[in-house]
Amino acid sequence: MRQRHKPWADDFLKNNTQLVIPDAASKKGEWGQLFGNDNPIHLEIGTGKGQFITGMAEQHPDINFIGIELAKSIIVMAGSKVKASEQDNVLLIHGDAAGLNELFAENEISVIYLNFSDPWPKKRHAKRRLTFHTFLEQYQSILHPEGEIVLKTDNQGLFEYSLVSFSQFGLELREVNLDLHNEEDPLNIMTEYEEKFSAKGQRIYRCRAQFP
Amino acid sequence: MRQRHKPWADDFLKNNTQLVIPDAASKKGEWGQLFGNDNPIHLEIGTGKGQFITGMAEQHPDINFIGIELAKSIIVMAGSKVKASEQDNVLLIHGDAAGLNELFAENEISVIYLNFSDPWPKKRHAKRRLTFHTFLEQYQSILHPEGEIVLKTDNQGLFEYSLVSFSQFGLELREVNLDLHNEEDPLNIMTEYEEKFSAKGQRIYRCRAQFP
Repeated sequence: MRQRHKPWADDFLKNNTQLVIPDAASKKGEWGQLFGNDNPIHLEIGTGKGQFITGMAEQHPDINFIGIELAKSIIVMAGSKVKASEQDNVLLIHGDAAGLNELFAENEISVIYLNFSDPWPKKRHAKRRLTFHTFLEQYQSILHPEGEIVLKTDNQGLFEYSLVSFSQFGLELREVNLDLHNEEDPLNIMTEYEEKFSAKGQRIYRCRAQFP
Repeated sequence: MRQRHKPWADDFLKNNTQLVIPDAASKKGEWGQLFGNDNPIHLEIGTGKGQFITGMAEQHPDINFIGIELAKSIIVMAGSKVKASEQDNVLLIHGDAAGLNELFAENEISVIYLNFSDPWPKKRHAKRRLTFHTFLEQYQSILHPEGEIVLKTDNQGLFEYSLVSFSQFGLELREVNLDLHNEEDPLNIMTEYEEKFSAKGQRIYRCRAQFP
């Protein structure tokens, strides 16, 4: 997502260290303690403006949610949204998806959400896609054995690529949905992108995959 | 495909036993001899009126093609089309996909095509879908180790189901295409159904999957 200059972003991060966790690597293996309970932890990679994670947290009070977002100006928007919702089962990390196993211990995460990730359509950029095998290796190292990856996108190329990449890595598909909004799924929480693209009549794809 | 009464069907079958092979089970393991060469054999399950197999045979003279079709009135239409094309690399079987390992020996088939198979949309009919695990077991028993299944359909539900079924059986996806006709694939031979549905703007899905 494109960043805009937001002078209040640094202030927000400084004043909300209980929500957007600084030095997140020091919390590796201790996220449950930070939440103050043993509930499963779901991780959204690329949280964007936070509509999905806030909605999920409201819908599932017995699940802890962590959102990671690289863009500073965006993570503070997610932070504002989480604060406004007054949910205590959400934490945020201003950081990069490339170092996940520095942030989380083995088995620490139950579900990973990849929502409308950058498709990196050029073949030479394939290794930047969040479903490239190097990322899958990281997901495997932090996911609980029965944990799963839930991928949602409007991008046909990314979805095609990801199904093949999952399969070739040995992940097992649990569900594939090629037109999510054609049926009503009352439990589906939409991201900002999803709302926009779906309103334009664009198909939304979703799949769930599990490591063997 | 709906059958119509065609009185000439029996005559056609009686007069063309070199094309529509009677007592096909007796040819198990000997199909190469029947073709008179060692070329790889590709099998289309549910050949319909034969447009795909005829087109493929013309495009790939170094591959042998066998088409199976259950409906007598339809297999004779495929037979007429093959005869008209004068291709000598096509044989047909009037029979059922349920007994494939009685028709073919281990490793005898290199590629299996499932084109626009009946989607059997009701959940209680799932076991009739040609990608149900009992069929996959049969495909595995006759496919060459490096052989693959190529599935093409316009039916979203069947495609979603098949991706999951392949994955849970341990098949590896080699390619997924969620809108085949949006890009031009000059090598894609269309079936009759495909031509009709694609002309209506309906999406055509395709995937290729390989046993591990």
